[in-house]
Amino acid sequence: MNKNITSQTLARLPVYFNYLRSLPEERKKGNISATAIAEALGLNDVQVRKDLASVSSGGRPKVGYITSELMSDIGRFLGFENHDSVVVAGMGNFGRAMLEYNGFEAYGFDIVCGFDCNSERVGSSINGKPVRHIDELESFCKSSGIHIGIITVPEAAAQEVCDRMAKAGIRFILNFAAVYLSAPKGVAVHNENISLTLAMLARRKG
Amino acid sequence: MNKNITSQTLARLPVYFNYLRSLPEERKKGNISATAIAEALGLNDVQVRKDLASVSSGGRPKVGYITSELMSDIGRFLGFENHDSVVVAGMGNFGRAMLEYNGFEAYGFDIVCGFDCNSERVGSSINGKPVRHIDELESFCKSSGIHIGIITVPEAAAQEVCDRMAKAGIRFILNFAAVYLSAPKGVAVHNENISLTLAMLARRKG
Repeated sequence: MNKNITSQTLARLPVYFNYLRSLPEERKKGNISATAIAEALGLNDVQVRKDLASVSSGGRPKVGYITSELMSDIGRFLGFENHDSVVVAGMGNFGRAMLEYNGFEAYGFDIVCGFDCNSERVGSSINGKPVRHIDELESFCKSSGIHIGIITVPEAAAQEVCDRMAKAGIRFILNFAAVYLSAPKGVAVHNENISLTLAMLARRKG
Repeated sequence: MNKNITSQTLARLPVYFNYLRSLPEERKKGNISATAIAEALGLNDVQVRKDLASVSSGGRPKVGYITSELMSDIGRFLGFENHDSVVVAGMGNFGRAMLEYNGFEAYGFDIVCGFDCNSERVGSSINGKPVRHIDELESFCKSSGIHIGIITVPEAAAQEVCDRMAKAGIRFILNFAAVYLSAPKGVAVHNENISLTLAMLARRKG
């Protein structure tokens, strides 16, 4: 196993993981070959074999990998066996969908609570997770040692929430508001713009 | 202007567009230099200058670009001035958020309606957009000539909806269900897995 993998391999590992995870339970109990994965995903099989060998030593000629072990190996490499608490700011439809979605757990993320400034939403509970007032963000995140936040507030409020998260000790921000956020050094922001993703998909040039 | 731009430039163009779009209205009326954009985004300014020159001829030494013209030039190149109708399948919180979000318009996408199989949701209207029964997907998309679809149904239903969309003439699918979808040739699927995005952000290796 080689820890110095390329960024291309790194980008493909979650694709393999996600594909394996999506297999029916009975197929997860068996073996799977790099060739079969390559075919299912439309990738080059030599490349897939190299990628998998870089994170798992379980591959055997003609037999392939034990599917569940390969999933654990990839997951462990990507840190999916960690347990990180995450907060979500903005309890509109999008933010509520985040709290209701249970798929984060497989990746080692616990969405622990939501924040909003609307008094009708504050104090409620979504999927067993409390909605707190945004003014409690800083004290809550600091006392709980949370360093991952998701922003689902309206565009106009996103920068302020980003600033508050940074002050609260959040180091990684996933931003769904369609604005460019500037964060202080040491805080990584990933701007997820669904309109742009759609544009790149449907109108790809070159 | 050069139509044969690299995929790296292509990936950065939406970032510039999004940044310019996020500027306050008064700044949109003025000029902006490649250097200022590079600084704001933490990119190399030579690279930004080259990227912008590949899609806009409006840059002038010491003055920079007229911000609004630069936005139009990038937007035109990326096809944001097109008008494409889009349908959304799955009217849970996530799908409803898609119908309520008005930010798609700036990118030339009109979310025209939602689909669901739940009779309590069918017949309702979200943000002025009707919710139809999923059985009407094929006839509606064919008669309206729609070729872009968003999937926000539960994992277990996603492949079936993907197959139905393909039959309905949809050629581009943005999938938010956390399963790998296989689509026939000629149909491009972009699998958006928010858990994975979060994992790559918060646990990036290498």
